[in-house]
Amino acid sequence: MRTGGMGCFWLFVLCLFSPAGANFTELTGMFGQIQSPNYPEGYPSDLDSTWNITVPTGFRIKLYFMHFDLEPSYLCEYDYVKVMSDDLQETFCGRESTDTERIPGQEFVLTNSNTMTVTFKTDFSNEERFTGFEAHYSAVDIDECVEKLDEALVCDHFCHNYIGGFYCSCRFSYILHSDNRTCKVECRDNVFTEKSGVISSPDYPYSYPKSSDCLYRIELEEGFTISLEFADIFDLEDHPDVPCPYDYLKIKAGIKEFGPYCGDKSPGKIDTNSSSIHIHFHSDDSGDNQGWKLTFTSVGKHSGKFLPDPEGNRRSSGRSQ
Amino acid sequence: MRTGGMGCFWLFVLCLFSPAGANFTELTGMFGQIQSPNYPEGYPSDLDSTWNITVPTGFRIKLYFMHFDLEPSYLCEYDYVKVMSDDLQETFCGRESTDTERIPGQEFVLTNSNTMTVTFKTDFSNEERFTGFEAHYSAVDIDECVEKLDEALVCDHFCHNYIGGFYCSCRFSYILHSDNRTCKVECRDNVFTEKSGVISSPDYPYSYPKSSDCLYRIELEEGFTISLEFADIFDLEDHPDVPCPYDYLKIKAGIKEFGPYCGDKSPGKIDTNSSSIHIHFHSDDSGDNQGWKLTFTSVGKHSGKFLPDPEGNRRSSGRSQ
Repeated sequence: MRTGGMGCFWLFVLCLFSPAGANFTELTGMFGQIQSPNYPEGYPSDLDSTWNITVPTGFRIKLYFMHFDLEPSYLCEYDYVKVMSDDLQETFCGRESTDTERIPGQEFVLTNSNTMTVTFKTDFSNEERFTGFEAHYSAVDIDECVEKLDEALVCDHFCHNYIGGFYCSCRFSYILHSDNRTCKVECRDNVFTEKSGVISSPDYPYSYPKSSDCLYRIELEEGFTISLEFADIFDLEDHPDVPCPYDYLKIKAGIKEFGPYCGDKSPGKIDTNSSSIHIHFHSDDSGDNQGWKLTFTSVGKHSGKFLPDPEGNRRSSGRSQ
Repeated sequence: MRTGGMGCFWLFVLCLFSPAGANFTELTGMFGQIQSPNYPEGYPSDLDSTWNITVPTGFRIKLYFMHFDLEPSYLCEYDYVKVMSDDLQETFCGRESTDTERIPGQEFVLTNSNTMTVTFKTDFSNEERFTGFEAHYSAVDIDECVEKLDEALVCDHFCHNYIGGFYCSCRFSYILHSDNRTCKVECRDNVFTEKSGVISSPDYPYSYPKSSDCLYRIELEEGFTISLEFADIFDLEDHPDVPCPYDYLKIKAGIKEFGPYCGDKSPGKIDTNSSSIHIHFHSDDSGDNQGWKLTFTSVGKHSGKFLPDPEGNRRSSGRSQ
């Protein structure tokens, strides 16, 4: 008996604090319709109805009203429809817009995100019969290629929008990195066996590719020693405090190592005293720098100095074919 | 032995008539990419590759090229890319557009339907190495509310586009018919027991609702006889040869029947000699006509003539509440 009495008590308390018509509806379709209860008949008093709309990511929500007829009140304190999303809140009431209240009219509400909440609250009484509202919503595709332009370049080269998403692609002869955003080049197998020549970062002096690791080997017969002379235009992404954390050039000559080099100061001339050189050029997924170019020459034990063929300048621009 | 020999013969015949590289690819995604075989390396000779793209109904297909480099030839007789859809055929070849050949350039191809076929054919030899093509496609939503405007009004009242389709809705107090296109009214329960009055089609003299069946009953005490007088503005959809096949007005007075009435000639005055009248007004799913209006009066055995109250004209406009 006591338990039954307490049950009735809590039911009474719950009843006191719960609006009579509290009502939640989850909507997950790509489009749909929302009507005030009893539409097109007059809506009940003491309503608290909420519609949660969710569409897939990659879409926003567009909501618009075809009919709107609510009890007018100063600052919508009696009956109102509230539309909410992340950074958005709109309150509508009445039968026409005034200086202090608004009806939706021909306007539509467009979210930035893929969720929206619509709440319809009515007070305890209506002076006359109001017919309520009818609203429609639909998912609208987000064109990420246009909207994300500000956000540190969503795609390195080309952006392709489709309904519900986007993807990146690269210019001819570039390869999309596994980050699905930056465009790299294949440049790991560059071997030079000539006594002299020119090597540069891909597309020098235009911006070198991102997310790439280029390897260049100069392999001469034993007894030759190789010298490198960097061009004045030298430009690799750097950092004011940390030595070359992003892009860098490293040179290995036997057991000797040169670099890492970055920044805008050319390393100038390097006598390696070696017949075999490994050059590793690394770039990360951001930045817009001109790169580097070097001329290599060699001196043999029993022969003179080898200088590059002036016609051969463009031969070895460092993209493996 | 003979069977084996014939098998080889048919294989030989098949080989003669079948291009070496014949290749079909079915693409059904909402977006995708098409590349010439071996891209970005040079494409092979004797190719016959076809991509069939299908997207869901309610969408069309947009195709565009990011790279295009094919062997040039007069009227694209050597190597070409052909894009086909219902009412569309585009042929591209070469490295630049000329007076007689075209490359796709920055243009895109947009189908009217949800299917597209891309064919890539190459001949037996290339004079030099051509790198082929890279194309992208995506499904594009059809806005039926805009595009079908010409087609006999896709929606009677309001049209709502969504991604992949559309639906219709009606003005306040109308109901969407089961054809999901026209807007009807509920008007089956109109009973008049006054001695006189005015009845009209809904919204008279504006266009009456489509796809509706309105019933009006005048029920007086026995001994009374009812007369109907139609207004001059009478306008129901008709047909030059068949009597009232679309919209009509039929009147039943006991065992007598009047009508069907349609067209633009008012039936004028009808003395029914009955105290009970059934009026059936039917409209089909098309047309834009003004409807009808009648004044009913009655004469009793033992009393005078009843004429309608001039103030009551608007009372019985025929929409059941």
